[in-house]
Amino acid sequence: MGSAVTDLRLTRADVEEAARFLDGRVVRTPVVRSASLDARAGARLLFKAENLQDGGSYKMRGATVAVGRLAAAGSATGVVCQSTGNHALAVALAARRHGLAAIVVLPADAPAAKVSRAEAAGARVVVGGADAEERLRLVARIHTETGYAVIDAYDHADVVAGQGTAALELIEEAERAGTPLDALVVPVGGGGGAAGASLAAAGRGIDLYGVEPVGCDSLARSLAAGRRVPVVPAPTLADGLRPTCVGALPFGILHEAGIGAVRVDDAEIAEAFRLVLSELRLLAEPSGAAALAGALRVTASGIHRTVGVLLTGGNVEPDLVADLLTRGTEATGKRHQPAA
Amino acid sequence: MGSAVTDLRLTRADVEEAARFLDGRVVRTPVVRSASLDARAGARLLFKAENLQDGGSYKMRGATVAVGRLAAAGSATGVVCQSTGNHALAVALAARRHGLAAIVVLPADAPAAKVSRAEAAGARVVVGGADAEERLRLVARIHTETGYAVIDAYDHADVVAGQGTAALELIEEAERAGTPLDALVVPVGGGGGAAGASLAAAGRGIDLYGVEPVGCDSLARSLAAGRRVPVVPAPTLADGLRPTCVGALPFGILHEAGIGAVRVDDAEIAEAFRLVLSELRLLAEPSGAAALAGALRVTASGIHRTVGVLLTGGNVEPDLVADLLTRGTEATGKRHQPAA
Repeated sequence: MGSAVTDLRLTRADVEEAARFLDGRVVRTPVVRSASLDARAGARLLFKAENLQDGGSYKMRGATVAVGRLAAAGSATGVVCQSTGNHALAVALAARRHGLAAIVVLPADAPAAKVSRAEAAGARVVVGGADAEERLRLVARIHTETGYAVIDAYDHADVVAGQGTAALELIEEAERAGTPLDALVVPVGGGGGAAGASLAAAGRGIDLYGVEPVGCDSLARSLAAGRRVPVVPAPTLADGLRPTCVGALPFGILHEAGIGAVRVDDAEIAEAFRLVLSELRLLAEPSGAAALAGALRVTASGIHRTVGVLLTGGNVEPDLVADLLTRGTEATGKRHQPAA
Repeated sequence: MGSAVTDLRLTRADVEEAARFLDGRVVRTPVVRSASLDARAGARLLFKAENLQDGGSYKMRGATVAVGRLAAAGSATGVVCQSTGNHALAVALAARRHGLAAIVVLPADAPAAKVSRAEAAGARVVVGGADAEERLRLVARIHTETGYAVIDAYDHADVVAGQGTAALELIEEAERAGTPLDALVVPVGGGGGAAGASLAAAGRGIDLYGVEPVGCDSLARSLAAGRRVPVVPAPTLADGLRPTCVGALPFGILHEAGIGAVRVDDAEIAEAFRLVLSELRLLAEPSGAAALAGALRVTASGIHRTVGVLLTGGNVEPDLVADLLTRGTEATGKRHQPAA
C-alpha cells in the first residue's frame, strides 16, 4: 500500500489491508439501532458507534495504521501532528503503544478534555494557532527540529485507509444482517474519514453523503468548483469539523468517486446530539452527532431504505453536554467559536 | 424449565436455556472497557453495556423470555406487571412483539421518559402507589378483572433466568478473551438480576457482589438476618433500586449461593454516572451506574484482578443528566425522592 500523501490510487483493497492490520489492535465497535430513530427517519438507520473506540474516536484507526507501520519500519523515533483533538489523542496513544515520542499541536480553544487526554496519553501538547494552516506550519517546524515523522490528520494514505475500516465494518455487518446499506452518511472535516468510507463503499451501490456544518463547507464548495476551495471556518458546535480546507488526498478520492454534500446548522447538530444520547444511550461529540443530523436530511428524500451513520467520536466536555441538554433547540455555536 | 414463582431449583442450565431462547430476539450487547477506569480501580473492569439493549435495559431479557413463552403457550390474551419503569417498558415491548395486550403499573413519581416509552410501546399505563406493595395489589386486582397473566419483575423464574443471560454473556466473553472474571458486580433492586447472575456465575470461582443504595438495602439486611427483611426505601438517585423488599425467589437463590452486599450513597452514584459518560461514552441511568460505584468499592480491597460490571440500563431524563453533570459531587437524592 502506498504511503505518499499524493497517492490517489488508494482502493478498497487498501482499506481491507488496513482492516487486517487493525484486527486485534483497535476495538471492533458495535452497530447500534433505535426503533424510535428509524421511525423518525422513515428508514433503517445503522449507527457505527466509534465513540466506543479506543481514544474515543475512529481516528484511532488511521493513527494506529500510520504509526504502527512507521514503528514497524523502525526509522522514526517520534511523531508529530496537528488536529482539533481526536487525531492528536489517537496519535499520542498509538505512539505510546509503539514506544515512540509524540508531539501534538492543538488549537488554543481545544476542549480541555481533549488536551488533558492527549497529555495523559504521554504526548507533549503544543498549543498552536486557531486555524489549521498555522498549526501545520508549527508541525513543519517541529519536524525540522526533531526529525519526528509527520502524521497528517487526513493527507496521509495510511490515515485515510485506516479511517475507512470503520465504514468497511459497518458495510459488511449490514450485509451479513441481510440489510445492506444503500446510503452511508459521514461527517466531514478534512475529509479523511469520508475518503476512507468512499473507498470502502466502492462498487457496492451505496450513496455516500458528507456532512459539514454551515459555514465550514469546504468540501461542498470544492466539489461545486471542481477544485479545493478553502473557507474561513464559521463558529460551530462541531469543533472537529472546521478545517480551513478539505485535504488534497481526500478531495481527489471524493471528487473522482462522487459524494453528496449536506450542510447542517447548530440547531440540527444539538438536536442530533440529544437524540443520540436519549435514544441510543450513547455519548457522541457534536462532530459525531452531525452525521445523524445529516442522515435526517438525507432520509427526508424517502429514497433510502437502509442508511449507515458513522458516529465518529465521543470526546465532549461535561459542561457542554449539560448545556446542550438544557438549552433546547436554540443555536449554541457562538459560545464555542474559535478564539480570536 | 420451571415457571412457578416459588421454584428455588433454578440452575445455570436454565440461564443457558434462556440464552438460547433469546438468541436473535434481543441485542447481544457489547462489553466495553476504559484504560482510565482500569487505572482508577486498579483492576481490569469489563462493562456489559445493557443500556444498549432493546428498551434501554437488561429487563428486556427476562420480559422476552417470560412473555415469549407465555405467548408460545397460547393461553394468555394479555399481561400485567408493576415496576419502577424498565421492567414495565420491557414487558410492554415484549407483549407488542407477541400481539398481547399489556397493562403496566408505574409509581406516581416514575421518570416521565419511562412512562412515555411504555405508552409508546403500546401499553396501558396505570399510575399506582409509591411503594411496590401498593402497586402489587393493583396488579392483582387487574389480573382478577382481566385475566391477564402477571409478569412479576423478579419473583418469576423466567424473568430471573432471562436477566441472568446478561451476566452469562459477560462471563463467557471474558473467558474467551483470556481474562476470566474473578468478581462480578450487579445492582440490586428486587434481586432478579442478581439472582440470575448468581446462577450464571455458579461454579466458576467468581465472587458476586450486589449493590444497593444506602437506605434501600433490603438484600443486605435480609442476608444478615437470614430471612427477607423489608425496608422503607430512602430517597435515592437510583430510582430503579428502591423496592420495599428483595423478592422471595431471588433471596432464596442469593442466600443459598452467597453474595456480597455493597452499599453506595448518592454522591458515589453521581460520580459513577459521570465516569460512565465521560470515560465509556455511554449513558447509564443512575441505577445502572450504581454498579460501577459498587465496583470501585469492591476493587479497593485489591484482591480482584478482573471485575465484571453490569451496566443494567440507560433510561434517564435529560434534565437529570444535566443536573448530575453540573452539580459536582453533592448528594442530589432529595430532589428525586418518591412522592409522598
